[in-house]
Amino acid sequence: MRPSHRQPDELRAVSLERAVVKYAEGSCFVKFGDTHVLVTATLEDRLPPWLKGQARGWVTAEYGMLPRATSERTRRESSAGKQSGRTVEIQRLIGRSLRAVVDLEALGERQITVDCDVIQADGGTRTASITGAWVALHDCLAWMKARDMLRGEVLRDHVAAVSCGVHNGLAVLDLDYAEDSQADTDANFVLTGKGGIVEIQGTAEREPFSEAQFLALLALARKGVGRLVELQKMAVM
Amino acid sequence: MRPSHRQPDELRAVSLERAVVKYAEGSCFVKFGDTHVLVTATLEDRLPPWLKGQARGWVTAEYGMLPRATSERTRRESSAGKQSGRTVEIQRLIGRSLRAVVDLEALGERQITVDCDVIQADGGTRTASITGAWVALHDCLAWMKARDMLRGEVLRDHVAAVSCGVHNGLAVLDLDYAEDSQADTDANFVLTGKGGIVEIQGTAEREPFSEAQFLALLALARKGVGRLVELQKMAVM
Amino acid sequence: MRPSHRQPDELRAVSLERAVVKYAEGSCFVKFGDTHVLVTATLEDRLPPWLKGQARGWVTAEYGMLPRATSERTRRESSAGKQSGRTVEIQRLIGRSLRAVVDLEALGERQITVDCDVIQADGGTRTASITGAWVALHDCLAWMKARDMLRGEVLRDHVAAVSCGVHNGLAVLDLDYAEDSQADTDANFVLTGKGGIVEIQGTAEREPFSEAQFLALLALARKGVGRLVELQKMAVM
Amino acid sequence: MRPSHRQPDELRAVSLERAVVKYAEGSCFVKFGDTHVLVTATLEDRLPPWLKGQARGWVTAEYGMLPRATSERTRRESSAGKQSGRTVEIQRLIGRSLRAVVDLEALGERQITVDCDVIQADGGTRTASITGAWVALHDCLAWMKARDMLRGEVLRDHVAAVSCGVHNGLAVLDLDYAEDSQADTDANFVLTGKGGIVEIQGTAEREPFSEAQFLALLALARKGVGRLVELQKMAVM
Amino acid sequence: MRPSHRQPDELRAVSLERAVVKYAEGSCFVKFGDTHVLVTATLEDRLPPWLKGQARGWVTAEYGMLPRATSERTRRESSAGKQSGRTVEIQRLIGRSLRAVVDLEALGERQITVDCDVIQADGGTRTASITGAWVALHDCLAWMKARDMLRGEVLRDHVAAVSCGVHNGLAVLDLDYAEDSQADTDANFVLTGKGGIVEIQGTAEREPFSEAQFLALLALARKGVGRLVELQKMAVM
Amino acid sequence: MRPSHRQPDELRAVSLERAVVKYAEGSCFVKFGDTHVLVTATLEDRLPPWLKGQARGWVTAEYGMLPRATSERTRRESSAGKQSGRTVEIQRLIGRSLRAVVDLEALGERQITVDCDVIQADGGTRTASITGAWVALHDCLAWMKARDMLRGEVLRDHVAAVSCGVHNGLAVLDLDYAEDSQADTDANFVLTGKGGIVEIQGTAEREPFSEAQFLALLALARKGVGRLVELQKMAVM
Repeated sequence: MRPSHRQPDELRAVSLERAVVKYAEGSCFVKFGDTHVLVTATLEDRLPPWLKGQARGWVTAEYGMLPRATSERTRRESSAGKQSGRTVEIQRLIGRSLRAVVDLEALGERQITVDCDVIQADGGTRTASITGAWVALHDCLAWMKARDMLRGEVLRDHVAAVSCGVHNGLAVLDLDYAEDSQADTDANFVLTGKGGIVEIQGTAEREPFSEAQFLALLALARKGVGRLVELQKMAVM
Repeated sequence: MRPSHRQPDELRAVSLERAVVKYAEGSCFVKFGDTHVLVTATLEDRLPPWLKGQARGWVTAEYGMLPRATSERTRRESSAGKQSGRTVEIQRLIGRSLRAVVDLEALGERQITVDCDVIQADGGTRTASITGAWVALHDCLAWMKARDMLRGEVLRDHVAAVSCGVHNGLAVLDLDYAEDSQADTDANFVLTGKGGIVEIQGTAEREPFSEAQFLALLALARKGVGRLVELQKMAVM
Repeated sequence: MRPSHRQPDELRAVSLERAVVKYAEGSCFVKFGDTHVLVTATLEDRLPPWLKGQARGWVTAEYGMLPRATSERTRRESSAGKQSGRTVEIQRLIGRSLRAVVDLEALGERQITVDCDVIQADGGTRTASITGAWVALHDCLAWMKARDMLRGEVLRDHVAAVSCGVHNGLAVLDLDYAEDSQADTDANFVLTGKGGIVEIQGTAEREPFSEAQFLALLALARKGVGRLVELQKMAVM
Repeated sequence: MRPSHRQPDELRAVSLERAVVKYAEGSCFVKFGDTHVLVTATLEDRLPPWLKGQARGWVTAEYGMLPRATSERTRRESSAGKQSGRTVEIQRLIGRSLRAVVDLEALGERQITVDCDVIQADGGTRTASITGAWVALHDCLAWMKARDMLRGEVLRDHVAAVSCGVHNGLAVLDLDYAEDSQADTDANFVLTGKGGIVEIQGTAEREPFSEAQFLALLALARKGVGRLVELQKMAVM
Repeated sequence: MRPSHRQPDELRAVSLERAVVKYAEGSCFVKFGDTHVLVTATLEDRLPPWLKGQARGWVTAEYGMLPRATSERTRRESSAGKQSGRTVEIQRLIGRSLRAVVDLEALGERQITVDCDVIQADGGTRTASITGAWVALHDCLAWMKARDMLRGEVLRDHVAAVSCGVHNGLAVLDLDYAEDSQADTDANFVLTGKGGIVEIQGTAEREPFSEAQFLALLALARKGVGRLVELQKMAVM
Repeated sequence: MRPSHRQPDELRAVSLERAVVKYAEGSCFVKFGDTHVLVTATLEDRLPPWLKGQARGWVTAEYGMLPRATSERTRRESSAGKQSGRTVEIQRLIGRSLRAVVDLEALGERQITVDCDVIQADGGTRTASITGAWVALHDCLAWMKARDMLRGEVLRDHVAAVSCGVHNGLAVLDLDYAEDSQADTDANFVLTGKGGIVEIQGTAEREPFSEAQFLALLALARKGVGRLVELQKMAVM
């Protein structure tokens, strides 16, 4: 039995609310159960120096967590003076995931920065962030299209993410914090709408796992991401 | 005429929503028009080293702004590696304002940290933060009372804040960003429920101002804070 | 009775010595009793990036304190790796105060940096700094005039500052450290030679204060700044 | 054809030289072709604060690269003042990989820090580091056994790592830099001697990849790690 | 001819003023011509962690320069966020020089921190600092003696320092900035009152120098330090 | 008797191995007994900003130590967030020493960065670094000559370094760690092939030393550097 009484292949209640802030070109407030992330997409004309003059753009991400998003208050990274290793890992993952479905040439010499700020954390903040980031990115690109700033299609597919793990010997989908902290194995899957794999990160927390276990998790992830992509489609309809 | 068509002594629409996050002992989502701040109050047993063993507690505040809370994206302070001077000034002001109405001896040897995170900024983020922080602090103390952690009354009064300024020659209450960026004079007033002055910060942005002008601003502030304190009372009823 | 036996409206002995260092375009060694600050004004051709090409200049300030300016040695900020919140607040205040009496267009595309370094601190370092900074700035501008670098009058008025507070129930002028550390209310006033208000910062250290108390402090400040402006006039004569 | 003329399932020349420095309790100079990493294992009595008094130890890793380990000189991280996101990601991966085969209770309340310093980089520095780190850790534990510091067996299995990728449409084992920089898909596999999966990190560099492609890479990785574990066995014989 | 018209073996006008600040246990305002340094000595009970419980004390130094001590304004190190290599080198030298004449056992488990802050720089700031630091240290120890805090004699000898160099082919004593910036060879000598050598730092700025040249500089230094020690004796008489 | 049973004027076994890494334009693995340093020389087209457009180049050095180069593990400077004072002192010394034998005009507008990374430390890491750095620099310049990048001779002489000290009352050459930690006096000498003095750094660790003692150390250093220059000549033959 899962602590949340969900079925093994059942996502938490997911919602994707668009246009939640006033200034950003695109935004999404994404909830995976009690995990809540505010995502904004910002269009800027400046590019990172190493990309200048190459006739293509860039999509990057930053990730943060409000100090009391968690059960215990965590120290503000601005006050600590640097981003933690975990923060850096996650924001690099979000950026790579989005770029996998973006045509950077079609974007032109511009940068879109996607900010994912966790308001409340109950496990799976990175997968919720990626799933919501696609919506914010979509709306930022729609904003640009409405202003005739784009020639072709920039967004080539959906991308969404979910975690799976082995909990009490059972392969389960979309771990919440209670499950995540006890899981034997924990894997994050980033998949496209067409079913392509963008990123797989699997970690044995206690015992190494087998190939069969891993494939079971991948099957669950396919199911979960399929559902998340449907929700993205409904959200931007 | 004010850009927002408000009367000179008219606040923006103010709302104070309580218990908006799952983990914090107290929280408040405060809106002053399009300025939105999420405030949480966290109770901790540890004290700053210089306060240990003095049989009293501490209330402190931290302030942050999401990168796209503003019209232009601002760089994340965790990535810049330090808090700006403006951030430091504001969080010190919030902390002092709350402590002015708190009986630190009655709190006991504990610290309450109030985090004010600006989700959207349209002027007056520090005054909205203080006004909402009182609600979050109130609820954190209520949480403690419900657990028999307090002997006496910790909160001695209300405290709330509002900005006033001279805009197009007219003294006006509760400046939004459009007014603030054009104001000749800008002052922030932190007052208690009983009308005591906790903090006054008045700055001549262009021309020095006269005592008469300053007193006109103070009169407006009294009116505004009176209304904010009523809203705090209704919120925690 | 004040610890220093001064009358309630009596300044400490104030001196403003000019041209105290060899290299700076303007300088002033200012003493408010045992509070001693060395102020230098440096002319530079470079401007902050956000001000370039706007046909006007900038006046900014930096503030520091020697480690043993105080009763207990304080850690060197260069060794701590960052400026404290207090330092940042004070240097921003000094810069704003000076700019309130400067015609930035008449200055042309140049920057004057005013460095205020506290050699000895006995309360009121920020007000002494502002008062001395006006002299150093005046002399830097005189240096420029002597070289035909200025077309019009850059300095539109005097500016000086003083602290007032309520000590043992008595409103007093120009607090020294012994008074400041026990004051119920502490306010800094920055006023111009013509009596305009540039900045008011009033803080209730213990109990909130009333409007009447505040106006009594302002009246004292007017008297004190009037005397400081006379001393500035004599100094630059 | 691979740039190095290797077979698709052929590792580079791998060597694992032990006891290469004078002071460390364990050390290994590992070469995967032109990728050379010096690994040392240091035994210390102190533990990270969050682990104290739990009757178990810790194994952690740090990773660095000499400035001219690469084709272009990279800036020294000590001079940049912080570790890059890439460095942080890699050292966390090495630490997790080693802990997957260590019995932390059997280690006792001690910490072993494994330093992996890249002398020369030609792709696969993290997989070479993990493979060599196992040898250095083994020797550090042997040093402890020789001094009767351990009660039971700390090291439960071998662990080694290899990268695989799709290069010119062909799944290949142990990518060097020339292949890595052109690969469509790049995955790192950390496996145990018994064939358990410790960590999988797969990233689509250009196009998302399919499950079949991923399984082909995993099969190659099994073959490669099998050979690396044989080399570890010979090295410590 | 020297730019200053001094004889080759002539010091600049040197003055050593004691007790120049209010709080420090010892202080000295030292002038070597236009080089002016304020030195304070602070007594503290705490010791660096590595020295605790060894029944002896420590003398350390810190060095700083006001931003406009120099012809061009230099950036404040607190704002740059770190001390320059030059600052670190100099403060380590000052500390070593003082410790060479101090009996750390006789000092007891206490630390004296000597702060050398350059008010105006015209060459030789480190040698002026050391020479003045001896006076401030002497007075700090006198302050302790007057309070019966010391059992034996802590200060075993005088220590003073001077620079020498080859300028226009001529060996000269006590270089000012005009000479220093053109010197072929530049050496700093720290010597004791009894003539012992504490530190020699000689650097060939352009051409390597010979042993004969070096010995000529050492002879000049002996003469100069002899005179500086006389001045120290008169100062503390 | 020396701990190593060497004669007072006997160097440790010294070796200078060239071309030890793949990418650097010049490199040398230098051993002074158990002190092992990897030196690389990197040619870059960019110059420090203050040197641009002056028709001459620059040679600079950086120094680092692997965490377990020493008996106790030292914290990684990249993780500490800054370079220690010792590191800064040493890298500045190496740079100055090399520039003393380089014709910067003949180098042209380019920079050579010499990285000295200590793999194992047993005393004398800075003198080993300088001695090996000359070889790496030589080879970098040979690489440039082979590509017709240089018009004249850049390297005007050899430069090498050695430490000397007084140990148990005996003046000895090339101190290892056992001697260095007990020496009364410790001096580093940087000399050219023609016998010119580039840098002398002598420090009294316990008692001040006499001129006669100092000259004895210099005589030993001449002998040692003479031998090191012979070894450099054989290495680059």
